[in-house]
Amino acid sequence: MPTFSADQLLKVTKKIFEAAGESEEHAVRVAEHLVESNLVGYDSHGVVRIIRYMKYIRQGRLKVSVNPQVIKDGPTIAVIDGNWGLGQVAAYMGMDLAIKKAERKVLGAVGIIKCNHIGRLGAYAYQAAKRNFVGIVTCNSSPAWVAPYGGKTRRLGTNPLAIGIPTGDEEPFLMDFATSIAAEGKVRVKFHEKKPIPEGWILDKYGRPSINPADLYDGGALFPFGGHKGYSISLAVDLLCGALVGAGCTSGIDAYRGNGVFMLAIDVEVFTPLDAYRKRAKEALDVIRSTPPAKGFEKVMIPGEPEFISKERRLKEGISIPAKIWREIEKIASGFGLDLNKELKSS
Amino acid sequence: MPTFSADQLLKVTKKIFEAAGESEEHAVRVAEHLVESNLVGYDSHGVVRIIRYMKYIRQGRLKVSVNPQVIKDGPTIAVIDGNWGLGQVAAYMGMDLAIKKAERKVLGAVGIIKCNHIGRLGAYAYQAAKRNFVGIVTCNSSPAWVAPYGGKTRRLGTNPLAIGIPTGDEEPFLMDFATSIAAEGKVRVKFHEKKPIPEGWILDKYGRPSINPADLYDGGALFPFGGHKGYSISLAVDLLCGALVGAGCTSGIDAYRGNGVFMLAIDVEVFTPLDAYRKRAKEALDVIRSTPPAKGFEKVMIPGEPEFISKERRLKEGISIPAKIWREIEKIASGFGLDLNKELKSS
Repeated sequence: MPTFSADQLLKVTKKIFEAAGESEEHAVRVAEHLVESNLVGYDSHGVVRIIRYMKYIRQGRLKVSVNPQVIKDGPTIAVIDGNWGLGQVAAYMGMDLAIKKAERKVLGAVGIIKCNHIGRLGAYAYQAAKRNFVGIVTCNSSPAWVAPYGGKTRRLGTNPLAIGIPTGDEEPFLMDFATSIAAEGKVRVKFHEKKPIPEGWILDKYGRPSINPADLYDGGALFPFGGHKGYSISLAVDLLCGALVGAGCTSGIDAYRGNGVFMLAIDVEVFTPLDAYRKRAKEALDVIRSTPPAKGFEKVMIPGEPEFISKERRLKEGISIPAKIWREIEKIASGFGLDLNKELKSS
Repeated sequence: MPTFSADQLLKVTKKIFEAAGESEEHAVRVAEHLVESNLVGYDSHGVVRIIRYMKYIRQGRLKVSVNPQVIKDGPTIAVIDGNWGLGQVAAYMGMDLAIKKAERKVLGAVGIIKCNHIGRLGAYAYQAAKRNFVGIVTCNSSPAWVAPYGGKTRRLGTNPLAIGIPTGDEEPFLMDFATSIAAEGKVRVKFHEKKPIPEGWILDKYGRPSINPADLYDGGALFPFGGHKGYSISLAVDLLCGALVGAGCTSGIDAYRGNGVFMLAIDVEVFTPLDAYRKRAKEALDVIRSTPPAKGFEKVMIPGEPEFISKERRLKEGISIPAKIWREIEKIASGFGLDLNKELKSS
């Protein structure tokens, strides 16, 4: 697999988005987001997304050179219209605004409508947590892939949820996951590899449990994670983002309609002096880390640790991109008159 | 099993708490909470709790006739000191305060420290949702019963989470669950019945999977729900309630230390006109309800529906209390010079 440094990937990703018509500021924003996703090990949300985003641009569903706009603004909340531009641009702006409100009013919430794929939600939760705010980020997603608990056809998006919480350590607590039992992307990988998926992930179009990934793409459905509990969270996310923020609920939608986003920032320091907070959090997490590992595990980790370990390693060792995906990216670049080999040599 | 009307149980529960020294207001509050839990089918959080609360009063860990106090107050947030009185009294006050703040500032958050068991969290989420606010309620709980993902000993409470969201219908969306794979109370029931529990619920003290409920009480641990996802939520709850609010984290604590509480209220109407909101929510939920049921299910339900169905039935048919538990409650009452049979006849 071709392997690149983060800086190399940043450079070529930025060039491609600029060539597609994005401003330098937007191109840097999305490039940083995608490469960071690769660094922390979320390859499904990394530079591979260039391919899909460029397709969306060609189809007109992702508009270039548009800026998100604040369409409702109050002391503690705001709603942003993403204008169907890059989701990442709207989402960073959203969390930034939520933090600004929380700086003044302790709590700040921002919703985003007409918003394309915002990528890895953990990025925005991290954005808050690194500045000593609790950050909560969720979005409903389309099309529907997930069956409600007790149902046999798909009705809900994979509706991810991320929470970042400052700790006494350098890196925050960072959870970030889909509320489906597995990401749709993981099923797709097995589908392309023609390999079975674990039991309990999907139903086929007749509502029968299946281990054949092709069944998902033939009218099947993913299970929510954790039975009725994950289902409840997924539906709560759909109501918050779809009905409360006003982006529209996913329920039953088979088309792409982007992400409806809800973000919340909480200023830690107003609840509790920061020193006392850090001490409490650090003590608690140290106790968790000290848990004797179960069979098959090396150690107990805090949410976010696997990502930070991946980032450290990939910053040193580079980021490998499957050859087939790299060729597609090269092809997209050459369509804009960019020679990626040349670009990389000059970097 | 002896069966009573909700009014009968309300009357005797109130009498018992008054006899124990609580004010009429507090006694009504806790009685209404416990009987409501029975009505909605949460018998583990119903009048059976009289027994444990009275034990806590005798032990001095639950103080009678004390009022919760607001010890930090701002436009959007507050912290309440429960003064180790009845958790329900502090929690209703907390959500009421969160709603008041959200009425003025769209968002309102309240934390509670030094707080006894607050009972069924759904009650407070419902309190918000019935008034057209989104209500989110969570608490960390002690002692630790739950192993972190990948660990083999207990470190976390069963840290429940409840969310209430208004809908276009009379009753709100209402989710309410423990972040452990099953409530500790369910394992206890099987333990008393000397029956096995399902696979995947607990580890024994050596970290081996077990179906013997006795193993939980001999140094074992419950699993979190949904693997690493439920673990992440449980730990986030511990950090929010323990470190942010300042109630203290559960991590590794084997003693009872009550509930650290975090509550959030969001005014729906400021995000979205209520009519548009109701329409969107109702449409989405109708699509969910229309999902063809999977094998073994009669229909797909919205979180909260099983509770509302139970309440309707039990209001008509009464609430059955296991004879052994009723005898214990009678004994407690007679310790205060109350004859429950006489009380019931006069009602």
